[in-house]
Amino acid sequence: MVERIGFIGLGRMGQAMASNLIGAGYALQIYNRTPDKAAALVAQGARLAPHPSQTTEPGGVVITMLSDDQALESVALGKNGFLEGLGPHGIHVSMSTISPALARRLAQHHREYQVSYVAAPVFGRPEAAAARKLWICISGHQAAKQRAHPILQAMGQGIFDFGEEPSAAHVVKLAGNFLLASAIEALAEALTLGEKNGIDRTTLADLFSKTLFACPPYQVYGEMIARNRYRPPGLTVSLGLKDLNLVLQTAATSTMPMPLASLLHDRFLTTIAKGRGDLDSAAVALGVAEDAGLLTRSVRPSISQ
Amino acid sequence: MVERIGFIGLGRMGQAMASNLIGAGYALQIYNRTPDKAAALVAQGARLAPHPSQTTEPGGVVITMLSDDQALESVALGKNGFLEGLGPHGIHVSMSTISPALARRLAQHHREYQVSYVAAPVFGRPEAAAARKLWICISGHQAAKQRAHPILQAMGQGIFDFGEEPSAAHVVKLAGNFLLASAIEALAEALTLGEKNGIDRTTLADLFSKTLFACPPYQVYGEMIARNRYRPPGLTVSLGLKDLNLVLQTAATSTMPMPLASLLHDRFLTTIAKGRGDLDSAAVALGVAEDAGLLTRSVRPSISQ
Amino acid sequence: MVERIGFIGLGRMGQAMASNLIGAGYALQIYNRTPDKAAALVAQGARLAPHPSQTTEPGGVVITMLSDDQALESVALGKNGFLEGLGPHGIHVSMSTISPALARRLAQHHREYQVSYVAAPVFGRPEAAAARKLWICISGHQAAKQRAHPILQAMGQGIFDFGEEPSAAHVVKLAGNFLLASAIEALAEALTLGEKNGIDRTTLADLFSKTLFACPPYQVYGEMIARNRYRPPGLTVSLGLKDLNLVLQTAATSTMPMPLASLLHDRFLTTIAKGRGDLDSAAVALGVAEDAGLLTRSVRPSISQ
Amino acid sequence: MVERIGFIGLGRMGQAMASNLIGAGYALQIYNRTPDKAAALVAQGARLAPHPSQTTEPGGVVITMLSDDQALESVALGKNGFLEGLGPHGIHVSMSTISPALARRLAQHHREYQVSYVAAPVFGRPEAAAARKLWICISGHQAAKQRAHPILQAMGQGIFDFGEEPSAAHVVKLAGNFLLASAIEALAEALTLGEKNGIDRTTLADLFSKTLFACPPYQVYGEMIARNRYRPPGLTVSLGLKDLNLVLQTAATSTMPMPLASLLHDRFLTTIAKGRGDLDSAAVALGVAEDAGLLTRSVRPSISQ
Repeated sequence: MVERIGFIGLGRMGQAMASNLIGAGYALQIYNRTPDKAAALVAQGARLAPHPSQTTEPGGVVITMLSDDQALESVALGKNGFLEGLGPHGIHVSMSTISPALARRLAQHHREYQVSYVAAPVFGRPEAAAARKLWICISGHQAAKQRAHPILQAMGQGIFDFGEEPSAAHVVKLAGNFLLASAIEALAEALTLGEKNGIDRTTLADLFSKTLFACPPYQVYGEMIARNRYRPPGLTVSLGLKDLNLVLQTAATSTMPMPLASLLHDRFLTTIAKGRGDLDSAAVALGVAEDAGLLTRSVRPSISQ
Repeated sequence: MVERIGFIGLGRMGQAMASNLIGAGYALQIYNRTPDKAAALVAQGARLAPHPSQTTEPGGVVITMLSDDQALESVALGKNGFLEGLGPHGIHVSMSTISPALARRLAQHHREYQVSYVAAPVFGRPEAAAARKLWICISGHQAAKQRAHPILQAMGQGIFDFGEEPSAAHVVKLAGNFLLASAIEALAEALTLGEKNGIDRTTLADLFSKTLFACPPYQVYGEMIARNRYRPPGLTVSLGLKDLNLVLQTAATSTMPMPLASLLHDRFLTTIAKGRGDLDSAAVALGVAEDAGLLTRSVRPSISQ
Repeated sequence: MVERIGFIGLGRMGQAMASNLIGAGYALQIYNRTPDKAAALVAQGARLAPHPSQTTEPGGVVITMLSDDQALESVALGKNGFLEGLGPHGIHVSMSTISPALARRLAQHHREYQVSYVAAPVFGRPEAAAARKLWICISGHQAAKQRAHPILQAMGQGIFDFGEEPSAAHVVKLAGNFLLASAIEALAEALTLGEKNGIDRTTLADLFSKTLFACPPYQVYGEMIARNRYRPPGLTVSLGLKDLNLVLQTAATSTMPMPLASLLHDRFLTTIAKGRGDLDSAAVALGVAEDAGLLTRSVRPSISQ
Repeated sequence: MVERIGFIGLGRMGQAMASNLIGAGYALQIYNRTPDKAAALVAQGARLAPHPSQTTEPGGVVITMLSDDQALESVALGKNGFLEGLGPHGIHVSMSTISPALARRLAQHHREYQVSYVAAPVFGRPEAAAARKLWICISGHQAAKQRAHPILQAMGQGIFDFGEEPSAAHVVKLAGNFLLASAIEALAEALTLGEKNGIDRTTLADLFSKTLFACPPYQVYGEMIARNRYRPPGLTVSLGLKDLNLVLQTAATSTMPMPLASLLHDRFLTTIAKGRGDLDSAAVALGVAEDAGLLTRSVRPSISQ
C-alpha cells in the first residue's frame, strides 16, 4: 500500500522536493497558502488540500517547507493547523530554515498531541532539490527519524544525524548559512582588493574556484561577485538578513558573541538600506566596492534601483 | 646542455621545490642562511654556494623562496646579493609571500641591472610542494614569464597569469591567504555555536567538509578546530598575523577598508597576546571558545576577581 | 486642592523620584510588584495600592518607572492594569527605558481609551534622581506634555522636548545609553594601551577626566576602569546588554547598521559568558585587558593546552 | 639674562605656541621648512634660522612642533639637524604627535650626544594654543623635565607627568586622539539613529552637549555632525587616519587588539576612498548616514567634491 504524506509549502524548493516524493511512489496531499503553485504537482497526481489540517491523517507524516517561523507557526498551530489531525504516532518532518527556539517550542507542543518532531533542514538550491542532491541534517527521536529516513532519502543525496535534541539540526542549518555568508564577504573583500590593484576580478575568482576553494559556494559566489551579476537571486539579501538574525539570536540565547556574524549583519543591513534587498545575497559586494571608492557615480543609480 | 638555476631559501617549502627541479634535470646552485638545510639537496647533486651572489651567472635565473620581506631584501640588495651578478637578461623568479610594495621596489631596482622580475608566489603546503602540486600565480614581463614557464611547471600543477605588473601575483597570494584566514574564523564561530547548543564539533565539521565545503581548507581547518589540535603548525599564528599585516597594508595603500581582515587581525593579535603565537593559525579558535565562556570554567574565579 | 498621581515602579530610581513628588506636594498612590519597597514612601504619606489599577482615577496621571518592556506591558495591559481605570483625559507618563516599538504600540492602545501617552525617560543615576538633577526627554501630544510639565520639573533639572511622536524620547534615551557604553569601550581600550606601555592607569584616567573629557561619564567610568572596581554596579552588564539589544533592534527596524553598537553588543555578551553579568557595565574592560594578554598570566597554561 | 630657545615647526599650533614664549620673555630662534610662516614671529622679535642646526646652542633647549615622524626625523637627524649642535646638557622638548617608536629611537640617539629627550605632546586646538590653554603631557628624565617646566607653563594651562620613559607621553597623546575619534563615531551613529526615527539632529546633539557630555569634544563634534558642516577642518580625515595608524601600530607593538580603533581605521579609510580626506575628521559621519541609506542621490555629488 502506498504511504500518504502531507506536504506543506510549495515554493521553488518545496515543489522540487514534493515532485521527487511523488516520483518515489508516495501519495501526496499538498497545501500552499496560494494554491496556484500546486498545479504541476496535481498534474503529477498530488491531491490539493484546502487547509493544512486536511493534508494529514491520524498517525501520518507531514512535511513542512516554509519560508520562515511565522509561516510554520501558522500552519502548525493556527486555525485549521495540521497538528491536531496528525495526533498520536504522527510525525512532523520540519525542513524549513527556522529558529532553534521555535523548534524547541513546537517540539514541546507536539508532545501534548503525541506527535514526534523531526528536524530535517536541507542544504542546496532548487536545482539541487530537483536533482535529489540535497544534503539533509536531522535531529529528533530515534524511532521517528528511522521512519522518516526512506522519505528523506527520496529527496537528498546524504543524511547527517545530529542526535535527539529537536533544535539541533536547525542550529546546524544556521551555522551553514553563516559559513556561506562569510564566504561572500571574504570573496568580496578579496576581489575588491584585487581590483584596486589592477587585477581582473574574473581571473582572480577563477583562480580561487579552481585551486584552493574548488567547491560550489566559492565557484558560484565568486562568479557572481566578479561579474557584479546579482539577478536572478538565489537567496535574496533580505532573506539572508533574516537568517543572520536567527544566527545572532541563537548565539545570544547561547550567550556567545559571533563578531563575524555581527559584521555580516551590518553589511546585509546597509545593503538593504541602499535599496538592494531583492538582489542575491552576494550583492553585499557592491557595498564593499563603494566603501573602496569604486562604482563611479554614473553607475550607481542603475545598480541601486 | 643542462640549465643552471640559482635557488635561495631552503625552508620546508624551498627544499621540496628545489628537489623537484633537480629531479626535472636542472643544475642547482643553492643558498641558505643556515647551510645545514642544504645537505639533502647536495646529496641529490646541488652545489652549495657560500653567498647569494654565487648562486648565479650572468643572464641566468635565480629563484627565491624566503620567509619575509627582510630576508628577500637582504639576499637581493645586501652585501653579496645575487642581483649584481645576474645582470643583463637575467631573471629573478620571486616565489615568497612578500608585500606588493617590495615587489614594486625590487622590480624598479632590477631594471637598473636589466634583470627581469617575475612574481611567482605559490599556494600549497610542503606536502603539496613535494608532490609537484603547487598552484603558482605569476606576473611580470611576458618574455621573462615564458622563459620561467618550464621551470615553474616542474614545481606545480597549474600556473595562473595575472599580467605584467610585478606586484600583481603577490596581491593575489595575499588575497588567498586572507580567504584562508577568513574560513578559519568562520569555522571557529560556527563550531562554537554548535558546541554551545550541544552539537558535537567533529560531526559538524565533518558535515561541512563533505557537503557545502568539500575543499581542503574547510576539511583541514575544520578537523583541527573540531579537535582543538593545533600542533604541528602549518602556518603559525605569528606568521599568519604577518600575512594579515601585509593584507591590511596593501589595502591601506589601495585606500580601501577590509573590515573582515581587520577583525582577523585583531583575533590573531589577541591569540599571540595570550601566548599561542607558535600554534597553527587555526588556534585562533581557542579565543572564540573563550569569548563564549568555554574552556575557562575551572580558572574563571581567579581571572574575574 | 492637591493633585493625585499614580506612581508605579519603586526601584532605586523610582523611590527617589516618587519621594521628590511627595516633597513637591503631590499626593501619591504607589504600586510595586514587591510591596516592601514602598515602606519609606508610605512613611512620607504615600498610599500603597494593591494593584496598578488602583493607583489611578478617571482622567488622572500615572507615572511608570519600570525595569523593562515586559514589566511595563504587564502593569499597563495585564490584569488589573492601570489603563482602563485611567480613561478619557488621563495621561500616562512613561519614564522607563523601553523599546520605541513598545511605545508606539502602547500609544496606539492608549488612544482607544482616550488616554495620552507621554514619553519621559530620564538620564541620571539614583543619586541624581534623589537630588532632583535628572535630565528628562519628552515626546507626545502637546497638551499632555504641558500638563505633565510641572510634575516633571519636580523630578529633574532640565526637560528636552522631542516633538509629538510617542516613541521619539525613547529613541533619544537609547541613543544616550549607547553613547555611554561607547565611552566605556573607548576608555577601556585607551587605558589598556597605556598599561601595556607602562603607563599608570589611574594617572591616565585622571588626565582625561580633567582635560578633554571633564564630564561625569568619563570621570566615573575612567575611575572604575582604572582601578578595576566594578561593585556596587550602577547599571549591570546584563542590563547594559538589554539596552544595547534595544538599540540594535531599533536600528534594524530603522534599516541602518550601527557597527559600534554591534561591537559593544559582542563585548557585553562575552562579558556575561565569562560570568560577569552582575558587575557594573564598565567591567567589560576586563575583557579588553584579557584580550591584551593581561590578567591571565598565571592561568594561561591550563587554558591553552 | 634671557634664555634662548630654538623652536622648529611653525604651523598654526607652532606659531601660537612660539608667540606665547616670546610674550613670556624668551628669545626665540625659529625654523620652518617654508620660511614665510615665520614673518609674524620675526616681527615679534624672533630670529629666523636658515637651518635647524642654527636654532640652537650648546647645552640649550630646542622645541619641535612638526606634522609627523618624517618631519621630526629630518630636522633631528638629517643634514643640518639640530642634534649635533645641541650637544651635552642640551634638551629636546618634543611636542609633536609622533609614534612612541620614534620617540624611543630618538631618545637612544640623543643619549649618544648627551642630549635629553623630553616628550611633551599637547591637547588643544590652535585657539587653545593662542590662549595658553593647552594641556601638556610630559615624560623623560626628571632633571630635564624640571628645566623644561617653566617653558611649558608659558604655553599651557596644565602639565601632566607620565614618568621617565621617553615614549610614554606620546602614547598618552595617541590614546587621547583615539578617544576623540571614538566620540565622533559614537555621535555619528547616535545622531543617525535619531534621524532615521524622525528626531532632529541638532536638538539631539544639543541635548547631549548640555547634559551627559557637557565637554568640548561632544559639543564641537556634535554640532558639526548635526549640521553636516565639515569645513574648515580642525584635524582632517587624512591626518586623523595618520593618528589612528600610529594608535594601531603602537597597539600591535604592544601585542594587543583595539577593535574600536580598527573600526575607526576602516571608517576613516573609506571616507578618504570616497574623496573626503580634506574635510574635518567628523566628516566620517557622512559614511554612517550613507550606510543608513540617507543622503539622497542628488545631495551626494556636492558632498563628495
